[in-house]
Amino acid sequence: MADLAPLFAPASVAIIGASETPGKGGTNLLANLLAHRYEGTIYPLNPRGGRIQGLPAYRDLAAVPGPVDLAFIIVPAEGVPSALAQCAARRVPAAVICSSGFGETGPEGQRMERELQAIAGRGGIRCLGPNTVGFISMRRRLVGSFVPMHRWEDGTIAMAGQSGMFAGIMAQGLMCQATQRLGIHVSLTFGNKMDVDETDFLEHAEADPGVEVIGLHLEALRRPRAFLAAAARVATRKPVIVFKSGRSEFGAQAAASHTGSLASNDVLVEAGFRQSGILRAYTLEEFLATLKAFATEPLPRGPRVAVLTTSGAWGVMAADELTECGLRPARFLPETCDRVRPLLPSWASVQNPLDFWMAVSEDSRRGHAEVFDAVLADPEVDAVLAVLSPYEPLDFDDVRDVFADLRRRHPEKPLLLSLYGGPVRDRWERELEGLRIPIYASTALPAKALGAMYRYACWRGLARGFPD
Amino acid sequence: MADLAPLFAPASVAIIGASETPGKGGTNLLANLLAHRYEGTIYPLNPRGGRIQGLPAYRDLAAVPGPVDLAFIIVPAEGVPSALAQCAARRVPAAVICSSGFGETGPEGQRMERELQAIAGRGGIRCLGPNTVGFISMRRRLVGSFVPMHRWEDGTIAMAGQSGMFAGIMAQGLMCQATQRLGIHVSLTFGNKMDVDETDFLEHAEADPGVEVIGLHLEALRRPRAFLAAAARVATRKPVIVFKSGRSEFGAQAAASHTGSLASNDVLVEAGFRQSGILRAYTLEEFLATLKAFATEPLPRGPRVAVLTTSGAWGVMAADELTECGLRPARFLPETCDRVRPLLPSWASVQNPLDFWMAVSEDSRRGHAEVFDAVLADPEVDAVLAVLSPYEPLDFDDVRDVFADLRRRHPEKPLLLSLYGGPVRDRWERELEGLRIPIYASTALPAKALGAMYRYACWRGLARGFPD
Repeated sequence: MADLAPLFAPASVAIIGASETPGKGGTNLLANLLAHRYEGTIYPLNPRGGRIQGLPAYRDLAAVPGPVDLAFIIVPAEGVPSALAQCAARRVPAAVICSSGFGETGPEGQRMERELQAIAGRGGIRCLGPNTVGFISMRRRLVGSFVPMHRWEDGTIAMAGQSGMFAGIMAQGLMCQATQRLGIHVSLTFGNKMDVDETDFLEHAEADPGVEVIGLHLEALRRPRAFLAAAARVATRKPVIVFKSGRSEFGAQAAASHTGSLASNDVLVEAGFRQSGILRAYTLEEFLATLKAFATEPLPRGPRVAVLTTSGAWGVMAADELTECGLRPARFLPETCDRVRPLLPSWASVQNPLDFWMAVSEDSRRGHAEVFDAVLADPEVDAVLAVLSPYEPLDFDDVRDVFADLRRRHPEKPLLLSLYGGPVRDRWERELEGLRIPIYASTALPAKALGAMYRYACWRGLARGFPD
Repeated sequence: MADLAPLFAPASVAIIGASETPGKGGTNLLANLLAHRYEGTIYPLNPRGGRIQGLPAYRDLAAVPGPVDLAFIIVPAEGVPSALAQCAARRVPAAVICSSGFGETGPEGQRMERELQAIAGRGGIRCLGPNTVGFISMRRRLVGSFVPMHRWEDGTIAMAGQSGMFAGIMAQGLMCQATQRLGIHVSLTFGNKMDVDETDFLEHAEADPGVEVIGLHLEALRRPRAFLAAAARVATRKPVIVFKSGRSEFGAQAAASHTGSLASNDVLVEAGFRQSGILRAYTLEEFLATLKAFATEPLPRGPRVAVLTTSGAWGVMAADELTECGLRPARFLPETCDRVRPLLPSWASVQNPLDFWMAVSEDSRRGHAEVFDAVLADPEVDAVLAVLSPYEPLDFDDVRDVFADLRRRHPEKPLLLSLYGGPVRDRWERELEGLRIPIYASTALPAKALGAMYRYACWRGLARGFPD
């Protein structure tokens, strides 16, 4: 297997099919590279030459003056074989074939895809696609997608998806969020996987020092044994979260026609994932919520969770949801109860879930700061899920300072936050941005994320099992 | 049982504990009544008299010049018995006791609550609470909550919650949304349920002609037999969706300490709900998603769903999720396939999920309009779940017109929309506001909502069962 480095960190890229006609894929792709300031040389190719988006355009690869590490091919399907042959002639080591119209279209497309494989094989070209929206690698600030990306947040996540448009548009949406964007270091969509597949990606993500968390959306496994073997190894170093869809018969049929890939028996998938330490997500929301928690939080050292809330009802919901995710209620130490008790009315007992509404109705800042600090400091507490309802009477000025201080004092303990309410809630979310406290508008999703973190910590041998 | 009309449509209200000190409950409550233009007379009461928020204040109920239909009591716990006694003396037929510090605080509080019950019983006062944030009834635009409500959207939903702060703050958040607000006609939180409970609310919602959908969040059932019997009757006329938390041991313990109510065995709850036609929601998100669908959509006449998408991956996810919610793939009639086929490339087959990306990449407006119309018109299709990814190249100008026309042409068929992406997606959501098409940022939630609608249609005898 040839090295994937040229794919993930190319010093120069050619765009075969670059354009400046609004709405075209070759236009968006080049615009993304420019807007995100790709740290390398860009060679736009177009049979008409001239200039494209301010750069000199070349009629073909032969005319490009310097070496080319990676070629994006974004031309109609019938033009792809010759484009790839040009890459072989110029010894371009890697190509991203965005064009569709191959294996996913039926027998004739499959024949053409085999032709591409033959050209790539002879030329020693590692290929992503065909039928991919492209890929992003922050190692060189390479935003090589034909979906317009208005912004990209670097981070420690490696994320790959089966499907083109889905992953591209989902990423566009995620990156447009005002807050709580996932930080993604490398991202790609496999498309038809004529060469680069999920196992390659996993191995790349394992080796990339910039990656700490790996997320995959898959509809099928191309090389199931190799993938599970790689995952079992990778998962001992970095968490691997997989959202595998096509579970049902209806879904599997849809997957077969979508990416031309045969469905796997879901019972086998489930068993294989478990054995390999893969954390499976069952919905897109759960997948993203789990990645966010892993990317921002330390692992819990055990299953005992404290629920802090300013409204008892959320405490009950969180308790149900944590239980269903395999977690347990923490029992506070007497010292913790002693610290919290003076903040509460005499009749209120200090228990878990801790509804500390009465502690914040007089002095909200102090109530939040003291209760969180006491509970985060308790060695019987492995993680904290706080469900807060910041509304006008509970608001205070230096929300960011309070939580920054808590995060600083207790860096080793997972702290997940659910926030509910109106304008005050939204301001709190903005103030807490960047503090490495993941924020959710749900209690079910952080419970699922924390459950996955606990299972992963157990798999790594870093967490205690159930205490009784 | 005395009539609940004075509670839900009072011509005049007194606020015992009205204030204008910022942040106080009695301040917020009066401000809400004024801001939402309550259609009745407001009598603020405060021992100091004078004027409060521009209205003449009265020192006690005896001093109020006209009849009082409803009294809000929002004073410290020790003052509540005398306030309620004043209500009895003035023959006030209904009271909302916002004050907390009763049954939820232990034996002494329980004793005080029994005292309140005795006073109310002797005076024939129907009481909501204690320990409630209040209630909202759009019959007279009465926003009687002590949580600031910046806006309230009237509609056909009756929603009631166990808990005070939770429901108030959740409602504040829902009503602050720029789009896709739930339209709620009547809403209350039970608090300690010393009198008015979920069964009373259900019977009121049954009789209220402005209510079409009933949603309850409960942690415990006060009179389980009466409730289930009432639900079984109500559910034959209006859907009853219940989010019952406290399912787990951890959650049930939390519920016990939260509202002082004994937990029910969840197996019995589940069985009772099923027998009574109650649709159970398991998370808050599912609860709200289901209410939205019922409030905006006709019922499906069968289980056969068509999935329309502009990205195959979402089609696969939706297929999985619909299957898990008890729904089935629709098989398109040949006529439908014949209408859609010319819009697709020759190699693409017309199947369900229908990935119509290729039909919109040339002319997005026409592609969306034609594909939706063909599929909505197909008698083999009972409902449509569309998962769309509007991004720049798929955008078009008159999105609202296209969907308004589809909704007009097919008023009888459920059409649920999942929208993903960045700025274009958000503009589409704004454009589609008010068209009676529920919009989600999830495929799992509309699948759950549609599953609940189908189960309900079966319960009512309005839907076919499975076709094979």
